[in-house]
Amino acid sequence: MQALWLENQQLSLRDIPQPEVPGEALIRVRLSGICGTDLELARGYYPFTGVIGHEFTGEVMAITGSDDPRGSPAASREKMTSGPAQWIGKRVVGEITAACGVCEQCTHGRSSHCEHRTTLGIRGRHGTHAEYTTLPLANLHPVPDTVPDEAAVFVEPLAAALQIQQQVQVQPTDRVLLVGAGRLGQLVARTLALTGCDLRVLARHPEQERLLQGAGIRLITEDDVQPRRWDLVVEATGSPSGFETARQAVRPRGTLVLKSTYRGEMTVNWSPFVVDEISVLGSRCGPFAPALRLLAQRQVDPIPLIAGCYPLDKALAAMDMARRRGMLKVLIKG
Amino acid sequence: MQALWLENQQLSLRDIPQPEVPGEALIRVRLSGICGTDLELARGYYPFTGVIGHEFTGEVMAITGSDDPRGSPAASREKMTSGPAQWIGKRVVGEITAACGVCEQCTHGRSSHCEHRTTLGIRGRHGTHAEYTTLPLANLHPVPDTVPDEAAVFVEPLAAALQIQQQVQVQPTDRVLLVGAGRLGQLVARTLALTGCDLRVLARHPEQERLLQGAGIRLITEDDVQPRRWDLVVEATGSPSGFETARQAVRPRGTLVLKSTYRGEMTVNWSPFVVDEISVLGSRCGPFAPALRLLAQRQVDPIPLIAGCYPLDKALAAMDMARRRGMLKVLIKG
Repeated sequence: MQALWLENQQLSLRDIPQPEVPGEALIRVRLSGICGTDLELARGYYPFTGVIGHEFTGEVMAITGSDDPRGSPAASREKMTSGPAQWIGKRVVGEITAACGVCEQCTHGRSSHCEHRTTLGIRGRHGTHAEYTTLPLANLHPVPDTVPDEAAVFVEPLAAALQIQQQVQVQPTDRVLLVGAGRLGQLVARTLALTGCDLRVLARHPEQERLLQGAGIRLITEDDVQPRRWDLVVEATGSPSGFETARQAVRPRGTLVLKSTYRGEMTVNWSPFVVDEISVLGSRCGPFAPALRLLAQRQVDPIPLIAGCYPLDKALAAMDMARRRGMLKVLIKG
Repeated sequence: MQALWLENQQLSLRDIPQPEVPGEALIRVRLSGICGTDLELARGYYPFTGVIGHEFTGEVMAITGSDDPRGSPAASREKMTSGPAQWIGKRVVGEITAACGVCEQCTHGRSSHCEHRTTLGIRGRHGTHAEYTTLPLANLHPVPDTVPDEAAVFVEPLAAALQIQQQVQVQPTDRVLLVGAGRLGQLVARTLALTGCDLRVLARHPEQERLLQGAGIRLITEDDVQPRRWDLVVEATGSPSGFETARQAVRPRGTLVLKSTYRGEMTVNWSPFVVDEISVLGSRCGPFAPALRLLAQRQVDPIPLIAGCYPLDKALAAMDMARRRGMLKVLIKG
């Protein structure tokens, strides 16, 4: 099959064997979204060799047979209740972390932090910028018929946006500042707006601003961000300057959520965090079921965020487009 | 009166006028404790000119009269209910921040973060390494007769230790690591131990270890600190190496409490905090009433932490002693 392969920071289209993992679902990828992490991987942010891509929707073609299925315990339970065969032909999205089920993190209810985890297209597991991919059945969620592929492909980043509300109580009276309105920031803005909080978004590109305004979300300029006034600040730029803006905005005893990874080391003066008793919270992957609910109920419409869609054999061009500053979602069609 | 004066990073004993602030209590200092912050101030960590010192116990001598008392609203309420005269002759401890009562922080219940605050011996207000000091009545707490001066002088840092439990739910099942067992760390160890949590303390000096063992608190060596295994880690060294040890110890989705300020800028790689979804929490001053309760009930005995006590006219020698590595509490007797 055709796949977008990463090796030594070089991307190439390759013809590789169709993946086959005993006990896992073989999924034909219908749409695969390019995430900031894909771009970071290609820049050498993390040493990964293989097929990149982890935001997708696809169709289950088969369950690879095995006398000794190596699925997780949750997968085994799923099989007992619904049977693997019932997945075949289903349109699905998939959680990206496959867990061992037995390490300290797994047994304490933190399987997304599994110590032996593999992560779709990121760590120890081929990804979705390809014709086919595989995942344990426990990772799959069926997509309701009312959710088109172009929306379903956003479930993974939309779940990541919702993770903020898994970690922090966002009160309707809160003044909330979102710094950054890129691929992930746009979704964070849309989920935070649903809480009724007093949200302002600091965007850095006219197209990002236009999309937020189209969704009825209020903007703010850097000059208007009052320092030490915001109950909750979400940093979604991943840049030192965005971090600095966010840090200065949060009020004493307020919360700063870091929604982006930061490449390399960043110099931070910690004393203001102590003196102002700020909570700083790292935030990563989130829950798929509520993300699917919000899409099915049309509470969030991500489709305007699609900037381009390329066939798989033009995946390198898709990556080039995604790399442009301020670019929103670029999709690859399987 | 005699006072320990700081100016341009130079400490000196000076004879200055007795303080007089309309509406505030004039307090004769009985004991004043040297805190790490005093040492940092003397090193130029913060631009302060005046009398340093903020941990104290003393006796109210007078309430300075005023036609227009500028006490905080809380102080006014206090006056209406008990009357200022009732404070005279009382042995007291005092909260170190005097608030304006009208700014956004004060009106939102965060008066210790008041935007116009003065802080005893730290910011805009003379401190306690002196014969006399002053504070608004609202800041005062009477000391129960059962609590000797040598314990009461620890109320301020003991309250700071308790602030951790104001901010974080410490569960009895939690594995808790405290990094640092100096002046503040010793008190943090004693308050955390009362929660029933599974506490280990990483100390760096034999005397610190001896004191912890005397209080029945378990130690751990750096080599035995398993990385990514601790539910809650408290950093109380204020050093980059202590921070690094603490950061590596905290488990995914765990909490790192920063109990010390950090001089200058510290280089931090933020990505692990995001990937592991760590909460980092700055922690500062705490509640006086429970600190007094714990002392009155003898749940915490800070007296073994006293390393030395100097008369006020030997305050410079007291500061020299306090500066020695691993030194515990040095007191100045008014």
